[in-house]
Amino acid sequence: MCELLGITATAPVDVSFSFSDFAQRGGRTGPHADGWGLALFHQGFARTFLDERPASSSPLATFLRDNPVETQLAVAHIRKKTRGESRLANTHPFVRVFGGRHLVFAHNGTLVHVRERPLARETPIGDTDSEHAFCWLLERLRDAFAGELPDDPDRLGRAVFDLANDLGSDGIFNVLISDGRFLFARCGDNLVHIVRRFPLGHATLADEELRVDYTQVLRGPGSVAVVATSPLTRDEEWVRATPGTLWVFHDGALVRTFEGLPEAAHVAATAWRPGAPSPT
Amino acid sequence: MCELLGITATAPVDVSFSFSDFAQRGGRTGPHADGWGLALFHQGFARTFLDERPASSSPLATFLRDNPVETQLAVAHIRKKTRGESRLANTHPFVRVFGGRHLVFAHNGTLVHVRERPLARETPIGDTDSEHAFCWLLERLRDAFAGELPDDPDRLGRAVFDLANDLGSDGIFNVLISDGRFLFARCGDNLVHIVRRFPLGHATLADEELRVDYTQVLRGPGSVAVVATSPLTRDEEWVRATPGTLWVFHDGALVRTFEGLPEAAHVAATAWRPGAPSPT
Repeated sequence: MCELLGITATAPVDVSFSFSDFAQRGGRTGPHADGWGLALFHQGFARTFLDERPASSSPLATFLRDNPVETQLAVAHIRKKTRGESRLANTHPFVRVFGGRHLVFAHNGTLVHVRERPLARETPIGDTDSEHAFCWLLERLRDAFAGELPDDPDRLGRAVFDLANDLGSDGIFNVLISDGRFLFARCGDNLVHIVRRFPLGHATLADEELRVDYTQVLRGPGSVAVVATSPLTRDEEWVRATPGTLWVFHDGALVRTFEGLPEAAHVAATAWRPGAPSPT
Repeated sequence: MCELLGITATAPVDVSFSFSDFAQRGGRTGPHADGWGLALFHQGFARTFLDERPASSSPLATFLRDNPVETQLAVAHIRKKTRGESRLANTHPFVRVFGGRHLVFAHNGTLVHVRERPLARETPIGDTDSEHAFCWLLERLRDAFAGELPDDPDRLGRAVFDLANDLGSDGIFNVLISDGRFLFARCGDNLVHIVRRFPLGHATLADEELRVDYTQVLRGPGSVAVVATSPLTRDEEWVRATPGTLWVFHDGALVRTFEGLPEAAHVAATAWRPGAPSPT
């Protein structure tokens, strides 16, 4: 098992706060001691930092804390290996190119039967069930959207929702997927989110007695949406997803929620704008 | 314009030596102040570090000097932009997946007409002529080798040689390409290499009055091959390529040399083994 963290904001933010807390779970307060990865989007390009060592003792994680990088969308993963050995090729997030953008994929859980799904064109580099699932998903998305991923959260969200439910039938499938515009977060068994608005105030980290000034995270009007497999802070209300839910985040807001079994699913479309109540 | 550096070794080596010298050219001793990139292979997986800032003042380059990563094959690039703005998506090396491996590509020069070559499936993320050339090359390689890149340096080397000569007709095409096994180095107008053998002794860096103990680079029998657009050291004999030459390096040795125009090219096959004279 492992933990997931996704962040999207109205404007570029310094993600070191949430990641430094999250990194404590990599070998120190959590059992997730088999490497970590962080993808930071700059428009359609994801700069990825990976380490096969625990995040809590990783010099690269320390470097990222001390030299924060601004980004509007980040996907992070801390790994406790279930299948596949500890090496860089097995470290999430996995990255591929789709229609002139990076697509990143970070998975929490185990998909027992996913290798029975044949791959025609995509080729995993490592030997995890997660990367196999990503390759399978990529082939379906390439079939559905020949040239490039659509800019429509209903159309793209519906496709990701259906494919994620399909993969979810193979096991536990908590997943974060992003193309740098949208952050898709699908709940297999554990997923929570919070939307923080400017001025952000203070919160207490769940793993350390450390208070952090949220105003340093977002320096102007707008919001930050944070999604994770468990709450990062103790004194805030995190929204918990029911299994099968797909949240679609964009520019710091939750913009769509897909719920239920594929045939009975409904879309909660939320016309969110800065200053409006939380779309949850 | 920009500079290229490739390193391949018999066993994993700490590449910080050559890179720290090379990094001086990024804004300090050279005019290459528009970002840099470094791809470090671990088997078929390339961990890539990129920065849009000059290497000589980059905290990430300093981190890599202070926290060296061992690798058997590295490709580095320092960029002085000719086309395309300074941003991460335009920073070499470019990376794609081919047959369960990363393929990396770093280019020095300008290919004036390369955008006239249509692309059917591959999609650049940035707007450089270099990434367009890489995508064109990838499509030709996917056509030639459907499932995966061959393990045969003659067959794969011949394909890369012919395609590189084709691209070279569009302008200046010094390039490093690697799949983690082979390092292909093609000379457009500037390319030199050296094969260093254990015990490696001392050498004087070209850019700084700094002597480095080569024995720290390779700690046992074997060799290190270094290829670059200009010599990194002043007191060693670097072999200079004639335009159109493709060198193929593998495990610290030069294993093939392709020279001449496509129709008249010949292959200098070298049965190199550790301890034998240099294959150059």
